[in-house]
Amino acid sequence: MENTVNPTELLEITRELLSVGGRHGTLESNPGMKEQVIRLISLLRTAMYPHVFGGTEDHTAIAVEYRLQTARRLLEQLLDTCRPGVDNASAALRFLRALPGMKAYLETDIQAAYDGDPAAMSTEEIMLAYPAFEAISIYRMAHELYAMKIPMLPRMMTEYAHQITGIDIHPGATIGKYFFIDHGTGIVIGETTEIGNNVKIYQGVTLGALSTRGGQNLRGKKRHPTICDNVTIYSGASILGGETVVGKNVVVGGNAFITTSIPEGAKVSVKSQELMYNYDSKHPVERKDVELDDAWFYVI
Amino acid sequence: MENTVNPTELLEITRELLSVGGRHGTLESNPGMKEQVIRLISLLRTAMYPHVFGGTEDHTAIAVEYRLQTARRLLEQLLDTCRPGVDNASAALRFLRALPGMKAYLETDIQAAYDGDPAAMSTEEIMLAYPAFEAISIYRMAHELYAMKIPMLPRMMTEYAHQITGIDIHPGATIGKYFFIDHGTGIVIGETTEIGNNVKIYQGVTLGALSTRGGQNLRGKKRHPTICDNVTIYSGASILGGETVVGKNVVVGGNAFITTSIPEGAKVSVKSQELMYNYDSKHPVERKDVELDDAWFYVI
Amino acid sequence: MENTVNPTELLEITRELLSVGGRHGTLESNPGMKEQVIRLISLLRTAMYPHVFGGTEDHTAIAVEYRLQTARRLLEQLLDTCRPGVDNASAALRFLRALPGMKAYLETDIQAAYDGDPAAMSTEEIMLAYPAFEAISIYRMAHELYAMKIPMLPRMMTEYAHQITGIDIHPGATIGKYFFIDHGTGIVIGETTEIGNNVKIYQGVTLGALSTRGGQNLRGKKRHPTICDNVTIYSGASILGGETVVGKNVVVGGNAFITTSIPEGAKVSVKSQELMYNYDSKHPVERKDVELDDAWFYVI
Repeated sequence: MENTVNPTELLEITRELLSVGGRHGTLESNPGMKEQVIRLISLLRTAMYPHVFGGTEDHTAIAVEYRLQTARRLLEQLLDTCRPGVDNASAALRFLRALPGMKAYLETDIQAAYDGDPAAMSTEEIMLAYPAFEAISIYRMAHELYAMKIPMLPRMMTEYAHQITGIDIHPGATIGKYFFIDHGTGIVIGETTEIGNNVKIYQGVTLGALSTRGGQNLRGKKRHPTICDNVTIYSGASILGGETVVGKNVVVGGNAFITTSIPEGAKVSVKSQELMYNYDSKHPVERKDVELDDAWFYVI
Repeated sequence: MENTVNPTELLEITRELLSVGGRHGTLESNPGMKEQVIRLISLLRTAMYPHVFGGTEDHTAIAVEYRLQTARRLLEQLLDTCRPGVDNASAALRFLRALPGMKAYLETDIQAAYDGDPAAMSTEEIMLAYPAFEAISIYRMAHELYAMKIPMLPRMMTEYAHQITGIDIHPGATIGKYFFIDHGTGIVIGETTEIGNNVKIYQGVTLGALSTRGGQNLRGKKRHPTICDNVTIYSGASILGGETVVGKNVVVGGNAFITTSIPEGAKVSVKSQELMYNYDSKHPVERKDVELDDAWFYVI
Repeated sequence: MENTVNPTELLEITRELLSVGGRHGTLESNPGMKEQVIRLISLLRTAMYPHVFGGTEDHTAIAVEYRLQTARRLLEQLLDTCRPGVDNASAALRFLRALPGMKAYLETDIQAAYDGDPAAMSTEEIMLAYPAFEAISIYRMAHELYAMKIPMLPRMMTEYAHQITGIDIHPGATIGKYFFIDHGTGIVIGETTEIGNNVKIYQGVTLGALSTRGGQNLRGKKRHPTICDNVTIYSGASILGGETVVGKNVVVGGNAFITTSIPEGAKVSVKSQELMYNYDSKHPVERKDVELDDAWFYVI
């Protein structure tokens, strides 16, 4: 009878499963790695901002130091998974030494978010309820590990940020101070993107490659754009290509599609869409010409 | 040797970390606040819909009352964190009194989702597997707290919804009955948006500000549009600006970019894009003119 | 005094709550169903890829078989919730028998992702840090259950994938081998979509219906497009309608809006947007004509 499970049945499925495909795994086995990555991020963030993410006692020096010690051990363990047989204790410590510098950058990002959004009520709100802080703080830590040439771990960190924010920043991207993202869902920032100081980016912006048809042959080439200081890129805009340079103080309007360089100081926007109007006879209205303002399109 | 961790090393990093940046924290310390926010949402939702989110016994009056009691305590505790020194017990109770009214609105949202989506098989599926129900149910609770002028908590609630759905509704927005969202990823609805009854919105729609360059100077000003009853806004459309009013029964086609008011009853769509066709010589095909239908562009 | 909670007060709110709206619940009560769905996905994935998702011992036949046994029981329990009174033990086993076939498809998806993305360093990175693997592996399992006409469960699985990746694939869609998604946030693939082999899709692409105004009357009709073998669809493009067929080897450029069929071998792209440039007098620059390349727009 079909509803009685034959004990050899599962064994057969097992054999079939094991015979399909290759091994893939090159890392040391570490089944809880995703959870450890999340825990590491939380530890480091609380060590940097004990008043916001910690409890009443967590901002004493002893509590911060204890957290750093725990983070060091956990990071060493993760590095042993990603890169066995190397002196990962030193590497973990080297990373921690860079933490005050990362915090100094984050301070500027928090300030930029507060200054840029009229809906923000406090810098603490930025840290507790803005996806930008989640994404940028994780990116800054992942970028440091990427610069240390750690495989896998930085990408797992930024992919965790992508999962919870919809903001996909590759740890290889270089990003200056006072970086501001609002809303953020759908933002993609590619591996070889370079971003200066004081740049603002809204939801749905792609800083991408023109084509990746070359696949693995393009590995390591500059494929993504360079964005200079004080640039603002409104929502839905795409800026593409490794040779595309967006000059200082440029403003890129919503939905603009940019594949060549933009000179310093320019404001680029899409010309008015041509819109068509039809009127439902069940709801007749006096016909009125509706003109779109073709000056500036900001989408926020 | 570098791989032996010097005990004073972590202490030095600690000192540096504590010296960078300000305190930020103005709330009472509450390290588990995010988890408490998620628990509160779950408790309130199960109290409203015990048959769907609870176990076998959870729909008895005693079980619902018990949940409300737990929710009241947890909410009071969260309010004490966000707004210490006020009579938060009364405030928590006032919020609970508004819960049946919120449920009445949610019932209309569930009905609208079921009626609007041919892929929906039951209202229960809407509640268990539609991001719209997650996002709108959390928004309706957060909006009530926002109206009570509670800081931080309503934003943490809607940002949690944003994380799990990609739908970013500011708790300050006003939204009528029978509100329908499909798919939803990338939707942004700003703080001062007003939405009437029977409105349908698809993925990637922005109801936004024209520019927030004024930053904190714009705080409290009407910056986002007004959407009247029975409006449908198809995917990728942007409607911008505090003076923009979209009249009753309007249909806005996919990807339309609207910065001025639309009169009642109009259907607005983007004129056909001009598309270019090239044919790959490796796969020669008889050339055929492909004409885009420029009548109506709905993207769902 | 208002801050003393009257014990009858919560009881009154309870009565009101219970009187608003219908029952909705038709499933057997199962309050932990969402968590069970996540656990099932994790068990099945580890059984398929023990070297990547399991611990050191997890790739032995006995460990895989044990996992399959646990998965079989959990799946049976979920099926009992969604579809009580049927022989769900057999159904669960039938699903497990299909698992090696699903793994064979997934192997091709992993290969396609590695070949297609120059930023990918190993196939293991694809599995641990690419949203595509999350979304496609869950879709392939959910589609099998959908084909077995299981209600609710397949939609809960793909909605979980949507939550963590921003990629919304309906379990009813049919998708061939070597399916590649990059970044992925904002992708929507509707219930009656058919996709061939070797198809690549980037972030923000909609494979949707032209209009769902018919609501529940459209249930079961082919509403979404057919995408043939070797098609590439760049970011932000929308392809709409049940009669729309995109032929073999077609390339659809970024942001294209397609509502009619495209013949085999064509490359379709949006003609250059007209862009406007303004120069900020505070940052005078030599005016330079910036021409957009109107050849090919790929957004990645």
